[in-house]
Amino acid sequence: MSQQPPIRTAGLRTQAVGHASLRRANLALVLRHLRDEGSCSRSDVADATGLHRATVSSLMAELIERGLVRELGTARAGAIGRPRRAVALDGSHVGALGMEINVDYIAVHGIDLGGRVLVERRIGFDAMGEGPDRSLVELGRVARKAIAEMRRAGAAPGGIVVAVPGLVDIGPGVVTLAPNLGWDDLPLAERLRAELGGFRAPVGVDNDANLSALAEFTSGVAAGTPDMVYLTGEVGVGGGIMVGGRLLRGADGFSGEVGHLPVNPAGRRCGCGRTGCWETKVGLAALVRAATPERAYELGAAASPDPEVRMKEISRALAAGEPRTLAAVAEVGRWLGLGGSILVNLFNPRVIVIGGYFARLAERLIPPAQAELERLVVAGPAARCRFLASNLGFGAASRGAASMVVDHIMDDPAAIGFGPATARSSVGSL
Amino acid sequence: MSQQPPIRTAGLRTQAVGHASLRRANLALVLRHLRDEGSCSRSDVADATGLHRATVSSLMAELIERGLVRELGTARAGAIGRPRRAVALDGSHVGALGMEINVDYIAVHGIDLGGRVLVERRIGFDAMGEGPDRSLVELGRVARKAIAEMRRAGAAPGGIVVAVPGLVDIGPGVVTLAPNLGWDDLPLAERLRAELGGFRAPVGVDNDANLSALAEFTSGVAAGTPDMVYLTGEVGVGGGIMVGGRLLRGADGFSGEVGHLPVNPAGRRCGCGRTGCWETKVGLAALVRAATPERAYELGAAASPDPEVRMKEISRALAAGEPRTLAAVAEVGRWLGLGGSILVNLFNPRVIVIGGYFARLAERLIPPAQAELERLVVAGPAARCRFLASNLGFGAASRGAASMVVDHIMDDPAAIGFGPATARSSVGSL
Repeated sequence: MSQQPPIRTAGLRTQAVGHASLRRANLALVLRHLRDEGSCSRSDVADATGLHRATVSSLMAELIERGLVRELGTARAGAIGRPRRAVALDGSHVGALGMEINVDYIAVHGIDLGGRVLVERRIGFDAMGEGPDRSLVELGRVARKAIAEMRRAGAAPGGIVVAVPGLVDIGPGVVTLAPNLGWDDLPLAERLRAELGGFRAPVGVDNDANLSALAEFTSGVAAGTPDMVYLTGEVGVGGGIMVGGRLLRGADGFSGEVGHLPVNPAGRRCGCGRTGCWETKVGLAALVRAATPERAYELGAAASPDPEVRMKEISRALAAGEPRTLAAVAEVGRWLGLGGSILVNLFNPRVIVIGGYFARLAERLIPPAQAELERLVVAGPAARCRFLASNLGFGAASRGAASMVVDHIMDDPAAIGFGPATARSSVGSL
Repeated sequence: MSQQPPIRTAGLRTQAVGHASLRRANLALVLRHLRDEGSCSRSDVADATGLHRATVSSLMAELIERGLVRELGTARAGAIGRPRRAVALDGSHVGALGMEINVDYIAVHGIDLGGRVLVERRIGFDAMGEGPDRSLVELGRVARKAIAEMRRAGAAPGGIVVAVPGLVDIGPGVVTLAPNLGWDDLPLAERLRAELGGFRAPVGVDNDANLSALAEFTSGVAAGTPDMVYLTGEVGVGGGIMVGGRLLRGADGFSGEVGHLPVNPAGRRCGCGRTGCWETKVGLAALVRAATPERAYELGAAASPDPEVRMKEISRALAAGEPRTLAAVAEVGRWLGLGGSILVNLFNPRVIVIGGYFARLAERLIPPAQAELERLVVAGPAARCRFLASNLGFGAASRGAASMVVDHIMDDPAAIGFGPATARSSVGSL
């Protein structure tokens, strides 16, 4: 039962090719119309879309079958003629499951198409220590539990997307390289489908920063801002880029790799082997190194002891006005602005959302970062771009993953692969 | 007659809003179908698009009226029933005029929708010396002449796009800043429409590197490569970026500003006032400086004497195996690769096309650039990206500008504002 194609997360097809894809495009057109306009009759939909009424009826029957649309009974009767039956988007019978596997946890965020949160959970898990095989077993276990809960709530997932901190080949859903998990060339989508047995809806994999960017665009501080960049500061620095309301993908899905931008060829050697990467200036290790008086920190040592403990020390030192720490944070802010200027010169976003540890120090990072950005951007104040701190915290990636499943269903309602009845009947196999 | 909105060059609207825009979207759908499928009957179009036959007939009547579609007479008669009349895209009655104004020339490239070149010309013109007012008069004169020639050839332009070396606010068609022309905040679209008097089709303005990127995508070495970057090496360095087959715009149209990426904060002061910009490493002045034994070249002096003369000297020295020149070109190649790695990490393009002087030295620039790129790109060989030399030469920007007009007409056939008959009747007013 793993023949379902993975979720292809590239941009919308803008051109119909042949009848089958035309029908899929029209299903999406009708579904979107209902989402945007609320309830209406089949005739309203036909008038608004220019589609033939018989076509609309047939599309509507399929959408009802798939649990995406419901009849509202007789409504909006015309002054003359037959009363018209209204239909509406039904968000409650189809779910979207977002997951994240990261260095020390697995997170799930399961919603229905109406946005109601059905499952939200974060489980401590040492992915690096456990290795890819045991990680997949655990990921499968957590997914099965979430799917079962969502089904009990009446909204079987119409797809799953998993967020991973690394390079992902989104076509086949293969993790090309995830250094912090110790994974390379892991066919995650295929392996997770195998773990899930009878699960018939598509399974996709994507980069965690990409999905966090999507979450910020969907429901975070940059909600509705079509051109925006998301940056996450951890030991590494990740990025996700929205262009015209869509995630930037590139030819292989490897776009947005901001951490190793060469910003200072005369600078420090990076953990990746290159010199002067942006991470060596703004990653958590760089901050800790600059803020710590003794040479207690060397490259690569930042992950242990606990970064969380180090962050608390830094926050305490900032509150106490410790000069070295204040200077270190201001310096990170300036380099954040310098790297930000690269992003603004190239992408011209309206907002750069900062997450991870950047968000926790935002109050002190943003002023120097914003000043440096404005000094360096070629278009100057004409390219209005502001740094904003994320308020989604942990969970942004799994939330973005769920949102990607929703987008995918709205783009291609036929891909969910089953109606609610079928879904219920296969619960037993999980 | 200048009420026509400027050509908005942002991405396609993916969602219909209201009846008027739905009709425009359906006009585009039908026109695209004819472009992609060749001649067919109205019923074929109705079947393939799912639109009602009466709707298709009405759309087709409008497209015929606008000179975009023609009747082919009776064809493909069915075995039974009425014979069906075939229709086809008619490229010959509507034109697309691309223009470029640059430091020392004005170029025009006028085609019909079928791609036939009707006007192609390059006129020497000192835009900086003449100032914006006289430049606009000259631009208007050249445009009127081209429009008249295109009308005589039977294809009145359905729009004009002008390429400018600078930052352009594409919404209103205002040149925000073009240092090499000495322009700032110049409402070029509005001023050119005023110069053109009775010209009723839309007028747009765009950055020259963006339009060159479009030309490379449409008909250059990267033809059909949806994710690609175009770089032009002159005294400055410009960039245009295609993402998923569309030009990257950003929030204000200021994307792709590659010349002032901060690649070496400890480096040389740039003409822009910042330090260590990419231009200071790979611009023509940087090459000449490094290749010239005496301190004959200082920053900003590269435009005089003639860069063309300097390029010939460099080519001669390379042919003679002059070590300093060879080393200088290799060094520029390495920095080209370093900057290229920023673009690949962020955009993940399949190809980087190099134009301007880069193209002329491509044979010697590409090997070190490609090696440095592969060393620095995070995804390594998985992100397959090659440097390729442009073969469009001068004229790429005006060719891309014409291609943008064609795209615009295909996206929104109603925007051309007139049928061929109206167009002919207004020749006298020009």
